[in-house]
Amino acid sequence: MNINADMGEGYGHYNIGNDDAILHLVQSVNVACGQHGGDPGVMREVCLKSKERGVSVGAHPGFNDVWGFGRRQIRMNPNDLEYLVAYQLGALAGMAAYAGVKVTHVKPHGALNNMCAIDKDYALAIGRAIKTVDPSLYYLALAGTEMEKAALDLDLPLAREAFIDRLYEDDGNLRLRTNADAMIRDPKVAAERTVRMVLDGEIISVNGKKMPTKFDSLCIHGDEPTAIAVAEACCKALRDAGVELVTLPEMMKG
Amino acid sequence: MNINADMGEGYGHYNIGNDDAILHLVQSVNVACGQHGGDPGVMREVCLKSKERGVSVGAHPGFNDVWGFGRRQIRMNPNDLEYLVAYQLGALAGMAAYAGVKVTHVKPHGALNNMCAIDKDYALAIGRAIKTVDPSLYYLALAGTEMEKAALDLDLPLAREAFIDRLYEDDGNLRLRTNADAMIRDPKVAAERTVRMVLDGEIISVNGKKMPTKFDSLCIHGDEPTAIAVAEACCKALRDAGVELVTLPEMMKG
Amino acid sequence: MNINADMGEGYGHYNIGNDDAILHLVQSVNVACGQHGGDPGVMREVCLKSKERGVSVGAHPGFNDVWGFGRRQIRMNPNDLEYLVAYQLGALAGMAAYAGVKVTHVKPHGALNNMCAIDKDYALAIGRAIKTVDPSLYYLALAGTEMEKAALDLDLPLAREAFIDRLYEDDGNLRLRTNADAMIRDPKVAAERTVRMVLDGEIISVNGKKMPTKFDSLCIHGDEPTAIAVAEACCKALRDAGVELVTLPEMMKG
Amino acid sequence: MNINADMGEGYGHYNIGNDDAILHLVQSVNVACGQHGGDPGVMREVCLKSKERGVSVGAHPGFNDVWGFGRRQIRMNPNDLEYLVAYQLGALAGMAAYAGVKVTHVKPHGALNNMCAIDKDYALAIGRAIKTVDPSLYYLALAGTEMEKAALDLDLPLAREAFIDRLYEDDGNLRLRTNADAMIRDPKVAAERTVRMVLDGEIISVNGKKMPTKFDSLCIHGDEPTAIAVAEACCKALRDAGVELVTLPEMMKG
Repeated sequence: MNINADMGEGYGHYNIGNDDAILHLVQSVNVACGQHGGDPGVMREVCLKSKERGVSVGAHPGFNDVWGFGRRQIRMNPNDLEYLVAYQLGALAGMAAYAGVKVTHVKPHGALNNMCAIDKDYALAIGRAIKTVDPSLYYLALAGTEMEKAALDLDLPLAREAFIDRLYEDDGNLRLRTNADAMIRDPKVAAERTVRMVLDGEIISVNGKKMPTKFDSLCIHGDEPTAIAVAEACCKALRDAGVELVTLPEMMKG
Repeated sequence: MNINADMGEGYGHYNIGNDDAILHLVQSVNVACGQHGGDPGVMREVCLKSKERGVSVGAHPGFNDVWGFGRRQIRMNPNDLEYLVAYQLGALAGMAAYAGVKVTHVKPHGALNNMCAIDKDYALAIGRAIKTVDPSLYYLALAGTEMEKAALDLDLPLAREAFIDRLYEDDGNLRLRTNADAMIRDPKVAAERTVRMVLDGEIISVNGKKMPTKFDSLCIHGDEPTAIAVAEACCKALRDAGVELVTLPEMMKG
Repeated sequence: MNINADMGEGYGHYNIGNDDAILHLVQSVNVACGQHGGDPGVMREVCLKSKERGVSVGAHPGFNDVWGFGRRQIRMNPNDLEYLVAYQLGALAGMAAYAGVKVTHVKPHGALNNMCAIDKDYALAIGRAIKTVDPSLYYLALAGTEMEKAALDLDLPLAREAFIDRLYEDDGNLRLRTNADAMIRDPKVAAERTVRMVLDGEIISVNGKKMPTKFDSLCIHGDEPTAIAVAEACCKALRDAGVELVTLPEMMKG
Repeated sequence: MNINADMGEGYGHYNIGNDDAILHLVQSVNVACGQHGGDPGVMREVCLKSKERGVSVGAHPGFNDVWGFGRRQIRMNPNDLEYLVAYQLGALAGMAAYAGVKVTHVKPHGALNNMCAIDKDYALAIGRAIKTVDPSLYYLALAGTEMEKAALDLDLPLAREAFIDRLYEDDGNLRLRTNADAMIRDPKVAAERTVRMVLDGEIISVNGKKMPTKFDSLCIHGDEPTAIAVAEACCKALRDAGVELVTLPEMMKG
């Protein structure tokens, strides 16, 4: 199994998240690309640190909205969105050159991820950006969503993810973070849930619905006070259950 | 000889310059990279049109300042500047993928170009960005400036440029556009001056000083009402004088 | 009757619209407030010119999105929106001080206007911003929409507007500009339609539905090639029909 | 004596500084106005908290540069700067309406403050913005600088400040924060130095030069790990020395 987390979301004098702590728990990172957070210097630094830790690097493109941190839906036309994502993929490749690493996957950020999960036009726009800039990139898609379908339609390398620390709705989508209970903050609850998800290959919704789901990567968050404790507990529980944790390309190549 | 011009400096609903007209007169374009102007869609379009016209594509990175159109000096530390330029080089490579073209040179925009001409630390910062992201890119430097020295120091491919439509100071730097007479707006004056520059290999300053100068490319502007007439006159005069006009890579490879 | 138009939507080196021509046709202007377009210098200039022409000045707040020109919906929470609008109202008051004019109305821009027309929470957010910053400002609301209701709920001065150059849907909302036929571009069609609207007090939808509507102001656009011709024809037709054209405060005070 | 501090410099999801702790130590705050930091919601909140604490509110305008946090010099022409500052003064007045407080002073932020200290054209630009938007605002100027002269030239209410936690050069300017020793981080050193400054009415430079200086307010910083300890020590030392601490308007009216 692979664990991924969003990183490099600081901006200039502003720091956010626990990048250094999170980096020790994951095998893949999603690097903010300068539009919702993450400036060029931050992007470079995350790439260097990821290289050092042997962690694979992915792009984490978002809406162009630092004030809203990419968590506000911006209804642009799919072509504009596609180009905005292509721009960010190129920009991250530029910064990754500082570490001599190759970007290996793409995962949309925040509101963009939420929109792509349910809107095929948006999901396809991301896919076309990937196909144009670097068709070898894995489209890291929330399992069971329009992103998964878009990647398949466009014949792109597809990696599916599930969330360690987020509740799911019955339709398989993530419970929006505007709900107070959207995040799982209890390490023990998260750890048990995660092991069951991985071993049984199914996700359980907020209402107890069991959804058999194929996934290649587990997402954890770094921006909650409880994030590190939750992530540590899940990693330990997985390893205790005999699950090997590897980078996303290693996971995909079996 | 090669002629280059800045292009793709519109932004969203805002248009600026005469891109289509200018594109017929030049053999290389400098594409704005989204920070001082030029959004992802504009960048893509310029790349596609350049491909169609057989014109070589360069990056035209600028300060992150749409309001100031990159014509205001921003005194950031050289490392931040370097990363900002690397970011833009990567982003343009992403958009150029839509046209299947390879970016072949880098020329800083506006205030950044002016600062790099006289400040070696800044000129080197641009050079390091090039060296990291793609060391095969020509550093298109104003002849005789710190940019030229920086490219040589860093052992980067160097192309030197001179300006068709700008006055020069006695020290070889461009007269700042804050001076009313900085631009040459008379097509006949520009054409005669340009042919003399190319055939004699020397630039004449605002005070009549003759400066023998090696250069590989001539820059014209698209953002003046007189720009097209000036550029047309210069191109015609050069061709009438037997000068062949070629893309920048062709010019450099002789 | 009053005629209003959006103005001051240029940004730095970017010009847009035909402000000078439009200013001769209207009695009230809606001044962009620096977030979707309009920089401080542009805002100041529009205020000075409006003062000179005896035209009343309103705020035209929009989403913080220069790239999208405020025409992309950004789904922020109503409180954030309220504060964003209050910020812009204050900022315009600051720039209006250069002309010694008092801002007298507020009309949301682009996607914000469209959202407020159908979403009461958003319409109320604008209203609360007005109520806090300057409760004497007229809330210039598209007649028959949630904005009108919000202004009434909050007991704010309300002015209703109708559009000279836009088609209406059967529900009384404007046809979105993403439809090719959203704008009326034929001066004669617009003029006849406008006189009928004013004299009969009713709007006719794209499907011919007659909707009796009270309105105090007519909106014209400056950003279409046909805008000036359409506006001139409408103004002339109204005056020929004996309709006096006055500023918004004059209109409201009868 | 009055003590002031910069506040409200967070932006969206990004927090910075120790606003709540600092607010208990000062009698006046300088509120970031949304261009270098501080979004409308943050501005509103600082105004509300300041009202609650009986602290006077000033504007803290900065360059339009969130990435650089207003600490990068942007060389714009003085008129553009003037309008940018007027815009921010208006915007803050809008947000202050939520607390029903009147803004009472203006103090430039970061690189803008540094530039105004030594460049009369810039210092006058700030002054003209104040004079236009609200000539009753105190121009809070670093004592002995071009800002002080500009306020006197323009006949504006002038308040002079000195710094508790920053070293001074022999010419009376602040030592730039790019120097490692620019900040005084030892509470005891700062406290002794502050009491001496206030009681003797003189500032001592980094080289020991004594500079008799009139000042009305002392500035402390909130963005250093040592800031709270330094500020607390200085406040206590001043009170122990019998110095009464009052808001800026109270200080000025004696």
